[in-house]
Amino acid sequence: MSETRIIPPRSGTAFRLNRGQRLVVIDPMGSQVADLLAFRADDPREVISNGRTLDYEETIRLTTGNRLWSNRSQVMLTIERDDTGCHDFLLTPCSTATFHHFYPDQPVHRGCFGNLAEALAPFGVAEDGIPTAFNIFMNVAVDGTTGRINVRPPISKPGDCIVFHAEMDLIIGLTACSAYASNGGSFKPIHYQIVG
Amino acid sequence: MSETRIIPPRSGTAFRLNRGQRLVVIDPMGSQVADLLAFRADDPREVISNGRTLDYEETIRLTTGNRLWSNRSQVMLTIERDDTGCHDFLLTPCSTATFHHFYPDQPVHRGCFGNLAEALAPFGVAEDGIPTAFNIFMNVAVDGTTGRINVRPPISKPGDCIVFHAEMDLIIGLTACSAYASNGGSFKPIHYQIVG
Repeated sequence: MSETRIIPPRSGTAFRLNRGQRLVVIDPMGSQVADLLAFRADDPREVISNGRTLDYEETIRLTTGNRLWSNRSQVMLTIERDDTGCHDFLLTPCSTATFHHFYPDQPVHRGCFGNLAEALAPFGVAEDGIPTAFNIFMNVAVDGTTGRINVRPPISKPGDCIVFHAEMDLIIGLTACSAYASNGGSFKPIHYQIVG
Repeated sequence: MSETRIIPPRSGTAFRLNRGQRLVVIDPMGSQVADLLAFRADDPREVISNGRTLDYEETIRLTTGNRLWSNRSQVMLTIERDDTGCHDFLLTPCSTATFHHFYPDQPVHRGCFGNLAEALAPFGVAEDGIPTAFNIFMNVAVDGTTGRINVRPPISKPGDCIVFHAEMDLIIGLTACSAYASNGGSFKPIHYQIVG
């Protein structure tokens, strides 16, 4: 058994994931979101790209078998297992600015953006180098006709997981999301394992 | 009358657009795509962001009244007029890699990515600093249920235009698209005007 590591509510972490290793991200209590970022370990200017990924995978509903691509058109991660099939790759990490915008009457938090920025700084990633994240378990409905986007509570059940296979040596950023809407109004931890 | 500038087929350009000026992008022959990028003039690490824009505007169908936001949560451009109402902000500029991927039997071109990289280099923008573009007139159907993305010929008619109001001093990158699919299989110019 691989060690299970815990990301406390409203926090984030960063770590190395080597080519061939697997990253298992688990929602221990259900209905929680984890923002995932990936950078090339030896050159963090190569970074996960929603545009390249949507281009090559030809879907916004990424699940088992889909690959997450970099801005240099290289495959970074392949999704090997996916219990929910419901993730988002359109929206950016929540931040001080998004809290002011969406929740003007509630306490402001630095959000996933601030948590990722702090966790990734030791790996040479600047704030401006943080792109749109792959938002694990985030339930974003898109109306194909009107274009409207609606953030809904995640459908993940306690213990649901998603497994990524690393296709290059990576630095990963990962959070337990801090926003009010994306996780159904409560703040919960995220668990993960590095396998291999 | 403002001077009309011409971007020849399969090429690109970059120029300064000051706060308060308007950029008019015209499809002179119809059914052509123009990739648009925007950078803060005095610090090109601040850059147009599809994720922030989709977050704040809450739609993937951006049109008159919508704003295009930066990675620092600042408004860069407001759409003031839009003849077609059909643009894309999901997919990345075509490139050598996308030509190899989507058109393996056809001649390779450096695409909008290569054209933008060359045009933006004098303004201090590196290749890795080129994000997902706002793809003017690009017709990308999204199935909200399955998530499938389909690139279709643009619906723009000859002379259709879109008008942007600059909300900060900007460097703009703009192309006449080079890909086979996005413009219905032919290569045409794009016209633009800077007003004010």
